[in-house]
Amino acid sequence: MTSGTAPQPGKHTVRAFDEELNHLSGRIIYMGGLAEQLVADALDSLVQRDPDLASRVIQRDDELDRLEEEIDREVVRILATRQPLAVDLRMIVMALKISNDLERTGDYAVSIAKRARRLADHPRVLPTSLITEIGSTCVAMVKDVLDAYVERDTDKANEVWKRDEQVDSAYTSFFRELVTYMLEDPRKISTCIDLMFIAKNLERIGDHATNIAEKVIYMVRGAEINRPRHDAR
Amino acid sequence: MTSGTAPQPGKHTVRAFDEELNHLSGRIIYMGGLAEQLVADALDSLVQRDPDLASRVIQRDDELDRLEEEIDREVVRILATRQPLAVDLRMIVMALKISNDLERTGDYAVSIAKRARRLADHPRVLPTSLITEIGSTCVAMVKDVLDAYVERDTDKANEVWKRDEQVDSAYTSFFRELVTYMLEDPRKISTCIDLMFIAKNLERIGDHATNIAEKVIYMVRGAEINRPRHDAR
Repeated sequence: MTSGTAPQPGKHTVRAFDEELNHLSGRIIYMGGLAEQLVADALDSLVQRDPDLASRVIQRDDELDRLEEEIDREVVRILATRQPLAVDLRMIVMALKISNDLERTGDYAVSIAKRARRLADHPRVLPTSLITEIGSTCVAMVKDVLDAYVERDTDKANEVWKRDEQVDSAYTSFFRELVTYMLEDPRKISTCIDLMFIAKNLERIGDHATNIAEKVIYMVRGAEINRPRHDAR
Repeated sequence: MTSGTAPQPGKHTVRAFDEELNHLSGRIIYMGGLAEQLVADALDSLVQRDPDLASRVIQRDDELDRLEEEIDREVVRILATRQPLAVDLRMIVMALKISNDLERTGDYAVSIAKRARRLADHPRVLPTSLITEIGSTCVAMVKDVLDAYVERDTDKANEVWKRDEQVDSAYTSFFRELVTYMLEDPRKISTCIDLMFIAKNLERIGDHATNIAEKVIYMVRGAEINRPRHDAR
């Protein structure tokens, strides 16, 4: 199958269909950009101790939910009115799954922002350098996987996919460090728990970027990536 | 739109199409049954302190990954060869999203099983009654939402959807209780962290059952459920 549309369509139909596909991927890109922004802002709100920024992240998440619903409706409409084939069909179907990953990414950004808002009121007991490092890797993964999606670049998708292991191992080290802090000083327990869950949220954001990478590869090649299991604790 | 298939298809085509749809929902039901089983077994492995059962949960998760890929391929094939409309189209499209929720549910069961396996080696420091209670609510939610899917029963789906609040509030109480234990006795910190993450995994399993409930309602009615936000900590 080399053609991405129904056989022998009129010129007008092809153009309209192309516009629909462009619109759909435009919505995914917009949604991805917003998800990336929310993660970056949630992290900033933690590091800068900025509860107002955290609140803005929490408010803007609704927009991601609406975008996911909009994309779902658009996909159903395109499938009902066109007969997309091959790479187009895969692209449309994957839009549904990718929008779901992006919506979950936003949920994790909200979780981080809620904890950041709470932590802003407490004296800082721990350095945030390691969490910033994990966080910036995750933000870069979300950004790069969207580039891979736009450019249909399987090499770039593969590269994102591989970086997940890095996040998992940084997460595991950070987790151990936090347990040590808690044992040393029980007054830090509550803060450490917040940081643990923030790290876990970041690790999940990395997982979702990896999921999207798998979908980009499937979309372009039509074959699933062979995924080994390397779950973090 | 009242018809679920393309206009005026031959009798033979209709029957073949119905068989495909039945096969697809059969795979979803099978996948759902397996996800439910893994969650129930993961909980049992925790309560019974049975590391072998925990290991079996971890092994069987691969099957869920394969089922998700199989369902994705089946959906793409049906969409490429048929022109499903209305409720059939929504059912096919939602199969993609539901399979994703079920795959994630399996991932959380694996997380629980990994911690259960570790905890089995340690002396029991805490009662597991509250976690069992949250866990059995979650298992029931997964079971009931699959029934709602099979029976296309929006009332049942709504009921599952409402129960999520119950899980969130039980989770929040349990979380507070664990923090108290940790403050009282720092030797319990490590175990309490495992239990916290197990509780969080259960809370996420409840979220996914709720997601599936929303999809069942959309599938049947063609309209999104109006979802308020009640995120747990």
